[in-house]
Amino acid sequence: MASSAVEKMGTEQQKEEELPVVLLLHPLLFLTKGELLKKFRFLMPWEAKSMSTHEFLTTHAQSVRALLSVGIFPVDSETIRSLPSLQCIVGTSAGVDHIDLAECRRRGISVTNAGTAFSEDVADLAVGFFLDLLRRVSSTDRYVRRGLWPLNGDYPLGFKLGGKRVGIVGLGSIGSEIAKRLEAFGCSISYNSRRKKPSVSFPYYSNVYDLAADSDVLILSCALTEETFHMVNKDVLSALGKEGIIINVGRGALIDEKELVRCLVQGEIGGAGLDVFEKEPDVPKELFALDNVILSPHRAVLTPESFDALQELVIGNLEAFFSNKPLLSPVKDE
Amino acid sequence: MASSAVEKMGTEQQKEEELPVVLLLHPLLFLTKGELLKKFRFLMPWEAKSMSTHEFLTTHAQSVRALLSVGIFPVDSETIRSLPSLQCIVGTSAGVDHIDLAECRRRGISVTNAGTAFSEDVADLAVGFFLDLLRRVSSTDRYVRRGLWPLNGDYPLGFKLGGKRVGIVGLGSIGSEIAKRLEAFGCSISYNSRRKKPSVSFPYYSNVYDLAADSDVLILSCALTEETFHMVNKDVLSALGKEGIIINVGRGALIDEKELVRCLVQGEIGGAGLDVFEKEPDVPKELFALDNVILSPHRAVLTPESFDALQELVIGNLEAFFSNKPLLSPVKDE
Repeated sequence: MASSAVEKMGTEQQKEEELPVVLLLHPLLFLTKGELLKKFRFLMPWEAKSMSTHEFLTTHAQSVRALLSVGIFPVDSETIRSLPSLQCIVGTSAGVDHIDLAECRRRGISVTNAGTAFSEDVADLAVGFFLDLLRRVSSTDRYVRRGLWPLNGDYPLGFKLGGKRVGIVGLGSIGSEIAKRLEAFGCSISYNSRRKKPSVSFPYYSNVYDLAADSDVLILSCALTEETFHMVNKDVLSALGKEGIIINVGRGALIDEKELVRCLVQGEIGGAGLDVFEKEPDVPKELFALDNVILSPHRAVLTPESFDALQELVIGNLEAFFSNKPLLSPVKDE
Repeated sequence: MASSAVEKMGTEQQKEEELPVVLLLHPLLFLTKGELLKKFRFLMPWEAKSMSTHEFLTTHAQSVRALLSVGIFPVDSETIRSLPSLQCIVGTSAGVDHIDLAECRRRGISVTNAGTAFSEDVADLAVGFFLDLLRRVSSTDRYVRRGLWPLNGDYPLGFKLGGKRVGIVGLGSIGSEIAKRLEAFGCSISYNSRRKKPSVSFPYYSNVYDLAADSDVLILSCALTEETFHMVNKDVLSALGKEGIIINVGRGALIDEKELVRCLVQGEIGGAGLDVFEKEPDVPKELFALDNVILSPHRAVLTPESFDALQELVIGNLEAFFSNKPLLSPVKDE
């Protein structure tokens, strides 16, 4: 909370009715921490129990200029159309595929995302999956807890991290943090992204299939867009191969999940670390019995430290919007 | 297998009876890979089924000069005394607390260890535990597999790695590899060892209690000796505190295990990642139900890559011994 503007507003303790109005469509975990409530007045449709959200919006939100989007709850075109004065959607996630960006573009509505507030935490979890799968951390933990060590002796060998060829799909701020960590383990990094990055010396692959074919481990840390939907399909999984491992900390629909499950069940790829799924919170039950899989309930960003950084960024974006200054983490049109 | 001497011996294919004799008291996993069998003739008491090991040693092993010690099977003073010609014990583990070093010293017997063959793999597993515990990787995996995500929603938050204060006990080759990895995650490193290391810039603590008091996470990667036995006692655990995490990739008896179990069960420390235990393969059953613990069956070194590196080192040490050259990884007398 370094900005002097922020501190000024905090100390002034404006009266609630004078605060800028922000629409909030779902409860926000860190709202109760208070900083946001000191600076903005929130319209919260779920508190008006006698009204549907749509009724609330058409009755109370016609003059609302800013919407705070929570997590990955959809902000669809219908919602956007019901808010004629909307000029800015402040997001709280790294990916904004849950927001109808085409509609925003048509209306000239600005959208922000979580910027780099989450990047380190997401990268940490991706590396955690990598270590877990290669060294079989959670599966050997199960082995010990079942009392099998004294009975059956050593569990099958794991694999060394050093020297493994890691292909990172999406070398933005998250992918770059993953690469930085894995270099310390002696892994060799390659990447795929929309365009080759001039400032990066890692080998670039213009398509995911070739990257998978040349990688022991494929890590997905890119945005979900029309172009990246199901980018990891049957062919890419086949190129990754029987020993290959896939890690997804992006969005579930980057992978054709049905095909992934089939490959895992039939042993056609080596393992998977998944923080995201196509139909969250539903996780394909076929995966529950597999020892070469690590499953995580979309929580790559869920640390108190990330939330603090995000809260600061959300406040900064809203204040910038209401004072006509440049937004801190705008989503750029492609 | 870079040594030209090694290659020479390999291509010469000496007759078995001409090969140098090495005593092996327990089966060795990678012996069957063949390289060792081409270069040495092994006496293997367990194959002489009609004889006890002691009978075998006093009957067949009186002229044996070299013993290959497998894993952490004890090499006690009785065994050493029954081998009057013994001059060298080639070890296959990083720590050699299972070998009676005092008896070796009296007899002038050289001892080697695994040198740095395992260092990266042990460091990787320690970091794997660190990530697992801070980000709750294996406990959230259990949560998903039990089908609780759709029912109960988000699992409790994990913690960011960046900024965590990590105290490393024993900054040898393993501890240094751990530090190198954790720096890439933005952790701040301090260490304890017998002596301050002039070439190291991390803050040095001359005792473990003070290090624990100033650390969020304590990682044990030192040798087990008379001095380090139960070095992590009730006081040190108390200094580490309710949020503190302990990771042990050294030897079980570095920690007063009974006290550790009590602290974990009663919530007096935050969590533990344990690859080693006082009475392996027995693991205290009180730990099996805890979600803030990760249990591993002494397998920090168990990767094929480590075994290849170790086999090469064992061959190098045995060849050096038999040709009166300096050993590659001698254990130095303290």
